[in-house]
Amino acid sequence: MDFENKTDSFQPNWQYATRDSIEQVEEGVQLAPKFNDSGTIPCITQHVETGDVLMFAYMNQEALYLTIEKAYAHYWSRSRQKLWMKGESSGMRQKVHQVLIDDDQDCIILKVSLTSPTKGGKEASCHVGYKTCFYREVTSTQDGPQLRFIETEKVFDPEVVYEGMENPTKL
Amino acid sequence: MDFENKTDSFQPNWQYATRDSIEQVEEGVQLAPKFNDSGTIPCITQHVETGDVLMFAYMNQEALYLTIEKAYAHYWSRSRQKLWMKGESSGMRQKVHQVLIDDDQDCIILKVSLTSPTKGGKEASCHVGYKTCFYREVTSTQDGPQLRFIETEKVFDPEVVYEGMENPTKL
Repeated sequence: MDFENKTDSFQPNWQYATRDSIEQVEEGVQLAPKFNDSGTIPCITQHVETGDVLMFAYMNQEALYLTIEKAYAHYWSRSRQKLWMKGESSGMRQKVHQVLIDDDQDCIILKVSLTSPTKGGKEASCHVGYKTCFYREVTSTQDGPQLRFIETEKVFDPEVVYEGMENPTKL
Repeated sequence: MDFENKTDSFQPNWQYATRDSIEQVEEGVQLAPKFNDSGTIPCITQHVETGDVLMFAYMNQEALYLTIEKAYAHYWSRSRQKLWMKGESSGMRQKVHQVLIDDDQDCIILKVSLTSPTKGGKEASCHVGYKTCFYREVTSTQDGPQLRFIETEKVFDPEVVYEGMENPTKL
């Protein structure tokens, strides 16, 4: 299996297994991930100590390879069409303690610990300034659902940490 | 915003908010989820007590609406192009205790408790017979990565619980 979207210098030492049967994929010990039509696989990132889901992103073949090899989280940015190591600009790196894969091998979990932003603040993962990206819950009101903040304070100042950088959120 | 892929009898009592600005989406209290080109939003389902990620699936607008309204997890099957309530055939339902949404409102978390299969076995979520879909971790060997089972025993017999049904795993 060839790596798609790979950077020029990328020379993997091993290849993902091909997906030959449902039994192999579900009950086997070969790493045979399914990359979707865009060449990516979804990834859920959890804090290794609390189990809190910090973020959700996508990996291409190279990002998953580098995450396994380097033990730091790498992702594929679909909007920028670019491989990135989490924290490369902010300092908010994700040290990988465990990598899990699901039954049909089309979703990854990373269990990570965090480092703090280089420019000040507490350990965090979310570009908005909260510890996790999931800082709001859906509550019910008479007029339908409304969001409620479950993280009430930002742990770093995004305007300092991401000064001059484009907000990744797309409408 | 119209609901896509809706069933004929579906009459929502409220609508999702439109996405007007990054500030509204990231810092506001309106539920303004982003459904992708296929009309779906990814959903991470965690056990409310342990924090273990049980499964990863997709919702369309109707599935998210029904999940919020009924407090039982509903998903959209991309392979079957069908709305389903988790557990409708197996009995392995997911009672929803909390719904979270991320910074740019393009990913959902459900915190759920589980019910056991109607035909016998312990509470579980995964069609293969394990409690969670993430029953294997990626380990490193000299020849590259290999999977290791972190759940070593199935908690129900999938051939009994899903007798006569097609395996949802696609190669």
